[in-house]
This record gives sequence, C-alpha cells and structure tokens, in this order.
Amino acid sequence: MKLTHYEKADALVMTTPSVNPPHQTERQTHTDEDAVSAYMSQAYIRVTVSDTIAQVKHVLREELEGEQIPTYLYVLDEDNYLNGILPVKALLTSGEELFVAEVMRQNYFFVSPEQTRHDVFELINNSGIDTVPVVQFGKLAGILRPQDIAELIEDENTQDAALQGGSQPLDEPYLSTSPVTLWRKRAVWLLMLFVAEAYTGTVLKAFEDQLEAAISLAFFIPLLIGTGGNSGTQITSTLVRAMALGEVGLRNIGAVLRKELTTSLMVAFTMGCAGMIRAWFLGVGPEIMVVVSLTLVCITVWSAVVSSIIPMVLQRLKVDPAVVSAPFIATLIDGTGLIIYFEIARHVMTDLV
Amino acid sequence: MKLTHYEKADALVMTTPSVNPPHQTERQTHTDEDAVSAYMSQAYIRVTVSDTIAQVKHVLREELEGEQIPTYLYVLDEDNYLNGILPVKALLTSGEELFVAEVMRQNYFFVSPEQTRHDVFELINNSGIDTVPVVQFGKLAGILRPQDIAELIEDENTQDAALQGGSQPLDEPYLSTSPVTLWRKRAVWLLMLFVAEAYTGTVLKAFEDQLEAAISLAFFIPLLIGTGGNSGTQITSTLVRAMALGEVGLRNIGAVLRKELTTSLMVAFTMGCAGMIRAWFLGVGPEIMVVVSLTLVCITVWSAVVSSIIPMVLQRLKVDPAVVSAPFIATLIDGTGLIIYFEIARHVMTDLV
Repeated sequence: MKLTHYEKADALVMTTPSVNPPHQTERQTHTDEDAVSAYMSQAYIRVTVSDTIAQVKHVLREELEGEQIPTYLYVLDEDNYLNGILPVKALLTSGEELFVAEVMRQNYFFVSPEQTRHDVFELINNSGIDTVPVVQFGKLAGILRPQDIAELIEDENTQDAALQGGSQPLDEPYLSTSPVTLWRKRAVWLLMLFVAEAYTGTVLKAFEDQLEAAISLAFFIPLLIGTGGNSGTQITSTLVRAMALGEVGLRNIGAVLRKELTTSLMVAFTMGCAGMIRAWFLGVGPEIMVVVSLTLVCITVWSAVVSSIIPMVLQRLKVDPAVVSAPFIATLIDGTGLIIYFEIARHVMTDLV
Repeated sequence: MKLTHYEKADALVMTTPSVNPPHQTERQTHTDEDAVSAYMSQAYIRVTVSDTIAQVKHVLREELEGEQIPTYLYVLDEDNYLNGILPVKALLTSGEELFVAEVMRQNYFFVSPEQTRHDVFELINNSGIDTVPVVQFGKLAGILRPQDIAELIEDENTQDAALQGGSQPLDEPYLSTSPVTLWRKRAVWLLMLFVAEAYTGTVLKAFEDQLEAAISLAFFIPLLIGTGGNSGTQITSTLVRAMALGEVGLRNIGAVLRKELTTSLMVAFTMGCAGMIRAWFLGVGPEIMVVVSLTLVCITVWSAVVSSIIPMVLQRLKVDPAVVSAPFIATLIDGTGLIIYFEIARHVMTDLV
C-alpha cells in the first residue's frame, strides 16, 4: 500500500512530539488562560482547493452568521491541514468558474495555539492584521477574529494595569470576585512589598545617632522618598507602555538612558529648588535646607537611572516588564534614598558625627 | 420656488448651531486629539437609495481597497445626509434587481465627531460593534473602522497607563519625545505631588516631642506609609480598570464598599501580624510592637475606604477616574497615616505626653 501525500504528512506530524519534546514542555509551562488557545474561535468558513468560486459563494451565503463579513475563508483538506487562505475580496473579482487553488494565498501570517497572549499582543499590535489563523503542526486549530484579538488585547491591558497597581490580575470580573480571592491576590504582593520595604527600618536604625542629633531630619523622610518613588513611577509607566506597544525595546537602551538622564537632570534641578523653598518654610536652618535640596537632586537622578534600566533588564530576562509597578519602584527607591539622605547629611552638617 | 425635501432639511440644520449654542461650547472644551473626529476615517463606500443591488456590487468591486471587506456601505444623498446603512451581507442574499432603499437598515448606532474618546471607549467596549458611523446634524462626517476603534482604545489605555503612573500622557511616541517635553509633562505632576506631600513635614513637626521621646518610632515611618499607599494602589488600579471597562459604576458603590471593607479587614489582620514580627526583629520593645501592629491595621482599612470611594466620587464629578494614580493615593495616605500612627502611639505608650 502506498501512502498518499496527506497520510505521509500526517505520519510525519504524529512523530513530531517525541522528536521534539522541548516544544511540549514549553507548552505546559503556560497556564491555559494566557495562551492563544483560550481566545481562538471555531467560527470560520472552510472551503477546499477543488471548489469553484461559484460553489464558495454559495457556501458563504449559507454559512454566514451575523453581519460581519470575514476577510478570509480557510482552504482545508479533509484532515484539517491548512492549504491556504482565500480572501473574500477574491470572490468579488474572480471568475465564477475558477478553482480555489488558482486564487488562494499560500503566504500568510499565523500564530500557534500555545503562544502566550503577551507575545501575540506585540506581534498583532505591530502587524495591523485583522484576522489571524492559529496553526499547529500544519493543521488549523482555530482563528483569531477581530473581536477575539480585541478581547486578547483588552485582557493583556487589564493584566498590565493590575500589575502596575502591585496586585495579581483577577480571573473574573471585579464584582463577582469574592473578598477571600481578593485578599489572597493582594496579600501575597503586599507581604512581598512589606518584606522588601522592611529594610528601611534597618537603614534608619543605622542612622539613629544622626536622627537623635538633628530630629528635624525626620520631618523630610516621607517627602524625599515619596518624590523619589513618584519620579521613578513616571518613568517606568511610560517605558512599560512603550515596550508593550513595541515602540521601545532592548535595542534602544542607549537612547532611553540618554533621554532619561537629560530629563532627570532638569527635573532634579526643579525639585531641588522646590525642596529648598519647603525647608525654608519649615524653618529648619540653612544646613538642613542644603541637605534636603541636595538629596532631592540625587534621589531624582538615581531613581531615573534605576527605573529606566529595570524594565529593560526584565525584558532581557523574558519577564513581562509590567511587573515593575509603582509600589515596586517606590520600595526600591525608599531604602536607597534614605541612605543617600543620611550620607549627604553626614557630610554637610558639621555637628553630626 | 418650492424647497425640496433635502433643501428643507439643510435649512433646518444650518440654523441649529444658533438655536443650540451649548453644543458648540461643549465642542470647544475638548482638545482635538481627544475627540472622535481625530480618529474617524473617510474610507467608506457610498451608495444611494435609488441604486440597485447589481449597481452596488459593481461599485463595491471598483472601490474596495485592501483585503478587508467592510461590514456596511453608507446610503447617502447628494448633501451627505445619512439615509441608512447597507449591510454588505445583504448583497449576498438579496436579488440583483432590488433597490438599496428596500434592503438598507435605518436603525443603527452612531457617535458624533465631538464626543470624547473616553465616552466612546465605554460605549464601543460594551456594544461589541465593529464599525460605527460618525454623524453630525444628520450628515455622515466619517466612520470608525475596526482599526480606528482599535487605535482609539489603544490611545485611551495608554492615557490611563500614563495617568496611573502620575504623569501626563505623551502626544507622540516615546522615542521621538524630547527631554524638554518629558520634563514639562513630568515636572508639573511631580511638583503638584510635592506640594501635596509637603504637609507630612508639618505633621511630623507637630509630633516632634513624641519623636524625641521615642526615636525608634521614626524607624517605621517608611514601612507604615508605604504599606498604606500600596494597599490603596491595589484597590484603585483594580477599580479604575473595572470602571474603564464599564464593569463597575456609581450604581455599585454599596457592593464595592462592602467588598473592599471585608477584604481590607482580612488584609489588615495579615499586615498587623507581619508588622508585629518585623518590630520584634528590630528589637524596639513591646509597646512600639503594639503601636506598629495597630497602626498597620488602621492604615490598611483607612486606605481601603479612601481608595474605593475616590474613584467613584471622581466619576460622579465627570473626572476620568484614571487620574487617581498610585502617587496620588500614596500622597493622600502618607500624611493621614502619620497622624494615625502618632495618635495611636500617644494612647498606647505610657511615657509619651
């Protein structure tokens, strides 16, 4: 018995998993909700290479649901191998007697069902494509219609928003999420941030003597670390969004650093002046005025460096940069900012040890 | 001379602006980039009521650009008044000899060119509509194609992301924005937050005596206000996103408050325990352990109340709730949190005044 063309192809594909196990493993590391397979639809219209345009027109008329006209029909054989895609537009312009094989396109962009939402978000966002076939081992697994792509992008944006807020994304709509689930999703992150932030206590204890000697140094702690955190948050939120849209990548790290350093020097000077005015109003004496002002300058530049490098490094490590949330940056800047503050105080103030 | 039907309609419309000036005024309060008019496209195919289906098919074949098939054609008269919309699907199922007037739909969803992106985002997100006509005074001003809607939604999400990061959205891609522009967009918000945060200095100065008496109270300042800010950020980021998607509105304020209060009591208990452990490790004595722990409980519940009410109030005031960014919540919690902290300290610690 001679194998037909399609049986051969089938036999080849059936052996693929054992030939190439890493592919299988990678597939299992993603949860289902994050994969393309969770979004794809089976609402496509199938035709075969040997149909005529007249036959396809009839099929289209019979099977069309709703008012939206698909951009493509899918040319499949009996084993569901995707032979090509047929633009519906071709139905309008081709002769009725032509065969699908003569009109279909064999070059097309496709994704695979186990690709993550995050990867596909970037690809689709940059391609401007409207409907994408989902193909596995040459077979059509489903399609991403415009509404599926919109849902995928919406979920990805919702996840980015949740991560930016320092919390895990919810799996269901907010109103149907129970307080226990909310507590579980939030407490984990809060505790992690708490542990990370806890070293600020150690830092302050280390500078206890300076604090005792000049208690008014304590007045500026929330203001200084708050400003450091805020200026860092501004930078990461801009960068994370630009990276999600594919505008900025690792290739731009030089340009990003130059831009952020230049900007932060201007911002630092602005904040230094504001700090001087605030310290003067609080009547804490000229030495602390200088310390507060210098600290604001240093913290602003420092937080710019940290918060422009971290999203890039995370992308390099294949971690979604959206996890660098405002709380994350603030926590990082808080402790280091305090060290900067007290070191500057120690050098500037003559009566401190 | 007798006015034709259309001339009459035209005359009516021409007087509308003076009859209804508020409409005009409202239009001028929005910047152009935020309005539907900035996104609509002129790439639609026009037909007239007296065309036959056969003629329309010919027009469609001639005028179609790209591979995407529009869902609707637009039935317009010579003055551009929109008489109805013609589903392309109807071309497939209707007889060639029928007139457009017999097949077209006269009920359809539309938006007006001066509506803001924010309003339209909610409407379209909830409707699942694919292409929307933009109509002004009965005339077709343009259409929002799926790609225009995608761009509008993307810009709205980018704006929300920028606001959540405590910064103004950029008008152009990140890489082509100059440092001076970045500085201008960021410094304004940083200075506003700086001014808002500045009162923490006043609060701390007011409790100077307590600080002098127990300097170790200062060790916990960043940790306490940080935790308050983080737990507030988690709540607002979830709520703001749910409100942007239309899942939650003012009508749900009771359900939201109940859910957030229940959740925050559980979170507060968790954080209180964590705080007790941290204070014990820092060796600050049992009194301060109790103060830190109690403060964490109170700050967590307080920040939950504040950060679930504020987005609702803003929506009520017709302000985009996305402005309640992490920095905004943190700033608000910082000062009030300090007051809670020192008030608890004053009551619990016997050697404080």
